[in-house]
Amino acid sequence: MDTEGAMARLRHLPFEDLGFANIDHHRALRHGIPEVVFAKGKTPEQVIAIAERLLDSANNVLITRADRECAATVMQKLDGGEYFPRSGAIRFWRDRTIRGKGTVAVVSAGTSDIPVAEEAQVTVEIMGNEVVTIHDIGVAGFHRLMHYRERLTEARVIVVCAGMEGALPSAVGGLVSCPVIAVPTSVGYGASFNGLAALLGMLNSCASNVTVVNIDNGFGAGYVASLINRP
Amino acid sequence: MDTEGAMARLRHLPFEDLGFANIDHHRALRHGIPEVVFAKGKTPEQVIAIAERLLDSANNVLITRADRECAATVMQKLDGGEYFPRSGAIRFWRDRTIRGKGTVAVVSAGTSDIPVAEEAQVTVEIMGNEVVTIHDIGVAGFHRLMHYRERLTEARVIVVCAGMEGALPSAVGGLVSCPVIAVPTSVGYGASFNGLAALLGMLNSCASNVTVVNIDNGFGAGYVASLINRP
Amino acid sequence: MDTEGAMARLRHLPFEDLGFANIDHHRALRHGIPEVVFAKGKTPEQVIAIAERLLDSANNVLITRADRECAATVMQKLDGGEYFPRSGAIRFWRDRTIRGKGTVAVVSAGTSDIPVAEEAQVTVEIMGNEVVTIHDIGVAGFHRLMHYRERLTEARVIVVCAGMEGALPSAVGGLVSCPVIAVPTSVGYGASFNGLAALLGMLNSCASNVTVVNIDNGFGAGYVASLINRP
Amino acid sequence: MDTEGAMARLRHLPFEDLGFANIDHHRALRHGIPEVVFAKGKTPEQVIAIAERLLDSANNVLITRADRECAATVMQKLDGGEYFPRSGAIRFWRDRTIRGKGTVAVVSAGTSDIPVAEEAQVTVEIMGNEVVTIHDIGVAGFHRLMHYRERLTEARVIVVCAGMEGALPSAVGGLVSCPVIAVPTSVGYGASFNGLAALLGMLNSCASNVTVVNIDNGFGAGYVASLINRP
Amino acid sequence: MDTEGAMARLRHLPFEDLGFANIDHHRALRHGIPEVVFAKGKTPEQVIAIAERLLDSANNVLITRADRECAATVMQKLDGGEYFPRSGAIRFWRDRTIRGKGTVAVVSAGTSDIPVAEEAQVTVEIMGNEVVTIHDIGVAGFHRLMHYRERLTEARVIVVCAGMEGALPSAVGGLVSCPVIAVPTSVGYGASFNGLAALLGMLNSCASNVTVVNIDNGFGAGYVASLINRP
Amino acid sequence: MDTEGAMARLRHLPFEDLGFANIDHHRALRHGIPEVVFAKGKTPEQVIAIAERLLDSANNVLITRADRECAATVMQKLDGGEYFPRSGAIRFWRDRTIRGKGTVAVVSAGTSDIPVAEEAQVTVEIMGNEVVTIHDIGVAGFHRLMHYRERLTEARVIVVCAGMEGALPSAVGGLVSCPVIAVPTSVGYGASFNGLAALLGMLNSCASNVTVVNIDNGFGAGYVASLINRP
Amino acid sequence: MDTEGAMARLRHLPFEDLGFANIDHHRALRHGIPEVVFAKGKTPEQVIAIAERLLDSANNVLITRADRECAATVMQKLDGGEYFPRSGAIRFWRDRTIRGKGTVAVVSAGTSDIPVAEEAQVTVEIMGNEVVTIHDIGVAGFHRLMHYRERLTEARVIVVCAGMEGALPSAVGGLVSCPVIAVPTSVGYGASFNGLAALLGMLNSCASNVTVVNIDNGFGAGYVASLINRP
Amino acid sequence: MDTEGAMARLRHLPFEDLGFANIDHHRALRHGIPEVVFAKGKTPEQVIAIAERLLDSANNVLITRADRECAATVMQKLDGGEYFPRSGAIRFWRDRTIRGKGTVAVVSAGTSDIPVAEEAQVTVEIMGNEVVTIHDIGVAGFHRLMHYRERLTEARVIVVCAGMEGALPSAVGGLVSCPVIAVPTSVGYGASFNGLAALLGMLNSCASNVTVVNIDNGFGAGYVASLINRP
Repeated sequence: MDTEGAMARLRHLPFEDLGFANIDHHRALRHGIPEVVFAKGKTPEQVIAIAERLLDSANNVLITRADRECAATVMQKLDGGEYFPRSGAIRFWRDRTIRGKGTVAVVSAGTSDIPVAEEAQVTVEIMGNEVVTIHDIGVAGFHRLMHYRERLTEARVIVVCAGMEGALPSAVGGLVSCPVIAVPTSVGYGASFNGLAALLGMLNSCASNVTVVNIDNGFGAGYVASLINRP
Repeated sequence: MDTEGAMARLRHLPFEDLGFANIDHHRALRHGIPEVVFAKGKTPEQVIAIAERLLDSANNVLITRADRECAATVMQKLDGGEYFPRSGAIRFWRDRTIRGKGTVAVVSAGTSDIPVAEEAQVTVEIMGNEVVTIHDIGVAGFHRLMHYRERLTEARVIVVCAGMEGALPSAVGGLVSCPVIAVPTSVGYGASFNGLAALLGMLNSCASNVTVVNIDNGFGAGYVASLINRP
Repeated sequence: MDTEGAMARLRHLPFEDLGFANIDHHRALRHGIPEVVFAKGKTPEQVIAIAERLLDSANNVLITRADRECAATVMQKLDGGEYFPRSGAIRFWRDRTIRGKGTVAVVSAGTSDIPVAEEAQVTVEIMGNEVVTIHDIGVAGFHRLMHYRERLTEARVIVVCAGMEGALPSAVGGLVSCPVIAVPTSVGYGASFNGLAALLGMLNSCASNVTVVNIDNGFGAGYVASLINRP
Repeated sequence: MDTEGAMARLRHLPFEDLGFANIDHHRALRHGIPEVVFAKGKTPEQVIAIAERLLDSANNVLITRADRECAATVMQKLDGGEYFPRSGAIRFWRDRTIRGKGTVAVVSAGTSDIPVAEEAQVTVEIMGNEVVTIHDIGVAGFHRLMHYRERLTEARVIVVCAGMEGALPSAVGGLVSCPVIAVPTSVGYGASFNGLAALLGMLNSCASNVTVVNIDNGFGAGYVASLINRP
Repeated sequence: MDTEGAMARLRHLPFEDLGFANIDHHRALRHGIPEVVFAKGKTPEQVIAIAERLLDSANNVLITRADRECAATVMQKLDGGEYFPRSGAIRFWRDRTIRGKGTVAVVSAGTSDIPVAEEAQVTVEIMGNEVVTIHDIGVAGFHRLMHYRERLTEARVIVVCAGMEGALPSAVGGLVSCPVIAVPTSVGYGASFNGLAALLGMLNSCASNVTVVNIDNGFGAGYVASLINRP
Repeated sequence: MDTEGAMARLRHLPFEDLGFANIDHHRALRHGIPEVVFAKGKTPEQVIAIAERLLDSANNVLITRADRECAATVMQKLDGGEYFPRSGAIRFWRDRTIRGKGTVAVVSAGTSDIPVAEEAQVTVEIMGNEVVTIHDIGVAGFHRLMHYRERLTEARVIVVCAGMEGALPSAVGGLVSCPVIAVPTSVGYGASFNGLAALLGMLNSCASNVTVVNIDNGFGAGYVASLINRP
Repeated sequence: MDTEGAMARLRHLPFEDLGFANIDHHRALRHGIPEVVFAKGKTPEQVIAIAERLLDSANNVLITRADRECAATVMQKLDGGEYFPRSGAIRFWRDRTIRGKGTVAVVSAGTSDIPVAEEAQVTVEIMGNEVVTIHDIGVAGFHRLMHYRERLTEARVIVVCAGMEGALPSAVGGLVSCPVIAVPTSVGYGASFNGLAALLGMLNSCASNVTVVNIDNGFGAGYVASLINRP
Repeated sequence: MDTEGAMARLRHLPFEDLGFANIDHHRALRHGIPEVVFAKGKTPEQVIAIAERLLDSANNVLITRADRECAATVMQKLDGGEYFPRSGAIRFWRDRTIRGKGTVAVVSAGTSDIPVAEEAQVTVEIMGNEVVTIHDIGVAGFHRLMHYRERLTEARVIVVCAGMEGALPSAVGGLVSCPVIAVPTSVGYGASFNGLAALLGMLNSCASNVTVVNIDNGFGAGYVASLINRP
């Protein structure tokens, strides 16, 4: 098949122009991929307008990074949403088919990293996966990590959220042989530089099975983990 | 002609000392160039005092980066202003002659980049140009960009506003042969470092027709685009 | 099963102390995972000593980042090696069983990124995968990317190597629905800051299926791609 | 006209696959745009192979950033080249039609910035423009800048190359009303951080008619200046 | 004279321990040097306690960086203070002897830099100098700078406050032959990085008579200018 | 003894899973080591839940970085706490045995550094040490430092907290022969970059007896100082 | 005792002026503290002149960071030196009294970190301590770390050298209760930024018993470890 | 006098165009100000051409930053030069009139900082000043600083060169009441980041009489010191 054919496919993809946003409707064609609205930087009215159109045709819709004001407006205007205040996620979940082959583990290094882990968990669930969550197992208390080793080795892919020094993905990566997606978090102070220390640590991981996403990007980690978990 | 002559011209340029500001009045001599007041860091009283003097002699006056408090005071004290709350621009538009040779396209990568694009659009319009605006066409949805390709290739110069990774100017630059002015925006989070990632991406663009302005500097991009669009 | 059992497994893992290095021998137990020696910072003698021990028990051994002097010494002392001078990889490939479920695509944005792509390719091959390589398809020449779209959509996972602005992973990510592993390269000059611009761009990718590894880390990307491609 | 038509145009664009490079041949269709090979990071053999193909169909070909070894090999293998050792440019100039409407001024702040200015000059010339060059006019000796003011105001677009503090584009920008393209150079030491200080200075220019390209990117500045100078 | 003698002098220097602060009283011995309290990071109570002790023995006392709450408390508790709300300085001025040999010029590049210039001016005055202030003369409007050239060349030392690109000290430095003290200000946005761009620009000034102080440090610049202006 | 034995010890270490936190109880087995809760990023409810469990089995419990709202809730719900509002520490101190061999000196360079010094002091005390505190002795007033020299040389380990340039640890380090733990503080403005300048200064100290902890990490410095002071 | 007495002591400290260096001779008065010459940035002649004077009065002398040329000259001119080419240390060891109370462990995360660990080891030995060295135990192979746990828990202070992500000090710190001195090394590539990633990771360690020294500063770590190990 | 008059003066200033450089000849009109050529980035031929013209009309000429090759060519072609290999300065000194009112002290913190101090010293001397030099007095050996205190307090202005942490200017600044010009040097390693640590330290100095120049800029410091020392 040639370029012309590929182009033909590309050009018939539908989208809708709202003036301030161009909405794709074809992603839903891939089963289990939710439509996603990143709320930060958009007005509540824009978020609602986009979500409304998506809800018309999509099964599952996920809004991320909605602050309290935005979330209150959305929950009032749109039915069926589930709000997660720690991470700012709002989930419209209609098709709960499990599509993943194995389980996805979502791990946090400390209690303060849980909001980011929650964003990953909400994403992994709405994309049709079984999730195991483990919180507060930093590298300085290795016996805690060992306690959960069995559950970790059973996972098909693992999301690890850690701030400060960001060393947990390496330790987890050394214990398992599946892919590990590292999420640096902005948790910390001083020379953590809002997650930069954790990000650099993870990029330089001595474990070969680790890849990295943006600081606090629990959604992205959960999204890729779900793709990897497809059969 | 010699240095002495050039100096002679220079030294007769008029300006007016308000104590806290020295106001140039000769820019208006160049047709279609508006007088501009950058409001950030100035008190509402200073902004009004400067704008009043400019309005005495200039045709068009543009105030940029006025916050809500400053804008309210300005709109109350000075007649004929048009306020754009997303970008903080206030426009006093008296001479609407079209001076540009072609159209200027103002493009944003995402909905959150619209405030910066609006500052560019307001500037391009007050400098006497026809404008085409296209919003929310990121590189990950290339079919949307292709949809607007015709409009882009018809423009004589294009302003592209993008945050996060800042890749849109390269993609647009590769589609057209006119100059592209890239505006990195502070939209993003984590390793976007308030627009630094987009800025660096644009400076390293693989498209040769791209130049860059400061983060969020929609005004500067619109200003240069207008100069380029002169016959 | 409890922590005690997990510990029991952990403590029986064999390794060998060479004084300057502790060599694991249990990784080879996982089928198709090669033993790897990172040569940079080690003397040729150290590299050879480690590789010799690994070759005693492992099927496949990969040495990465060997400079010309180191490679010459290794190739002279150890039989059966295949040297890739662009990337500095040396491959001892004994078990060529294909273990991957689909194909892995390895893509480079420009000719100068090929050494990094080669490291990824060598890794993906030695881990038992079919590889498709595509070179020199930057975002500013989108028609080239479209030409190869069919091959990209057929891959089960894609490694994308790009320097300068690092925008290619987003464009590829938007065309396919499989995981994309982005490798920023140190190719560029000035404000590329030895790969930092590309790294930041990739971390801020607007495509949700992109994760990132360290600058120039073709090995790591190939390693994770191979894990993802396992059935 | 619709997306389909745009796509149709896109997909017929010719390119040629050399294995390590995909060569576009359609750029030459736009009159006066040279084919360009960026030599840094490519082997002399790769540079020659690409240049040979381009010379088959293009009128003008420009190789940039060729080091002495690469240049020697190229000059020996390919006829008709003109080598500029300060900037590393090699120019194959066959069509010398003047296509620009006015003159382009290329300015350097100091003697050490001349190599970058030369790259801009060579580019501007091969794209069919009349060039005026002015060297060594820093802001601390303003009388020198005034001496050349007449020539600067006569230009239709100005390229300004400056290292260290990078203040010259602002001073030039304040004297003229045409677009100014600022090129930060890596000239300097200590807190110039290889051109970062100049880059930041130029991005924050108080002159509204200034846009910026990458550090040492004389080619890019000359390219855009040529586009702006088109009628 | 030997080390022992120097030590003897050192060890008899008086200071007073308030528990949270050790107050020197010997600086006042040098005529015209005010006692200074840096209010930022101290509670209003601490500022008042320190100022009270200083006012007992010193002629002139200067409090810098007092926010509105702190200033209100200080002005209420201590008599004779003069508050400058733009810069946060509070001046207790009892000895107004002129001690400087010539005049000190304090210059700002833009209206928004005036608060920093004010801190310098207040300092220079309380240390017994005649001051000339000139505001809003940026490098992009060189004719304004030339207008004030006479006043600048008459000064014995010049303080120049500038944000954004920070180019004014170089331009002033090129016009005069006295020392210029450059104060980068945090005025700007985006790639000004809170004054970093101006700081780097000033450190790389092409004018040899420029030295630099910390971002927004009007006090330090005024202090050193006063020392230089001593006969 | 072998790995198996070490593992055996490790795996019996007790911890308790609260869902959002895994609490270790074995640290208290080491005499005089308090249980510590880092409150920043945790909700008041989480802090209280963790502290309650720790208070059941531990002698001494220390909560750090509690903001006013968190502290108010904790003090209301849990008995016996002592709140230090400057540093945000809350101390539950039951076992006041002195375990340190000598005294620990806690020094601050300026009044604004006292909150960080207080965190160190509270930590050192709860870990069973005699403390000497000295405040406001910067390097520019060396006679003040000399005044306290005797007390400094008597200490067995010294914690030095300093912001801005962070030079005090070097000066103290040169006067004594015991270990000095340097704590950079975020005190300063402009080019202090929130403590980065102090951090870099301390890492480059010319005194060989200086080690460094994170910016504002008074707790960490006090913790290590206490360990060093053990007999 | 008062300031005067302290001063008296200070002023009688002997030093010797060589023109280019002022040599202290009183450090040797503290038993077991070697005189140290940092060779980097000094000419071989300067190093020899300083070392000669020190060897006249001191027992033990340590030269650090001597490159091969410098070392060759020193070894030829001065008798009794022991050269360590990996770290560039030269040791003149005359008094081998053991002064430390316990053992000092020197640990490296990887083979490439050994040169830095060697500098620490050489320092610790010349200061009169028993040393245990353990190499190549990274966090991704936790079973190796566990193998050496017994030796680590027996140490009175531990120096841990690690490049790349720098996570080993946290893992070691969690296993032991003695002070851990972390040495980030410049081992790594890409986003390790010559040791910056390791440095930031260590400063943000979640283990409370970790302090940090400069990148590659094995000497400093060994020096402080020796002071801590004093009875 | 008005702007016109100032301009008149400006426009008659002589300069000479060499094609690659514009040479000012009017600086020599100010007595004792040498003409200066910054050799870095210029070819030996360019340096010689410029110096030759300057030597025709100026009394004193100073070439800075000449590497060995450049210096050899210059010394061979031009008579009367004095070469300082450590700093790369070449001095043509014809008018040795002492013009300074007092002495200038040039101080270095360590032996490795001497090349930078030498550049300052050579500059100060050629501008007609008495110089006192003091080397190797770091803050960790305060008794050495005290030894030279008398000489320091006698100076009218002090240049202090220091790498690593850059703390010496603050300590010197606290001992004297004259202006101190701080020169950060690139001496150090690791987290000194080529002088950045010293630069930041000096900018944040707690001594109010300190201003700063660029890293390694001994010339600039000597130049300003000479201006300050004028009567």
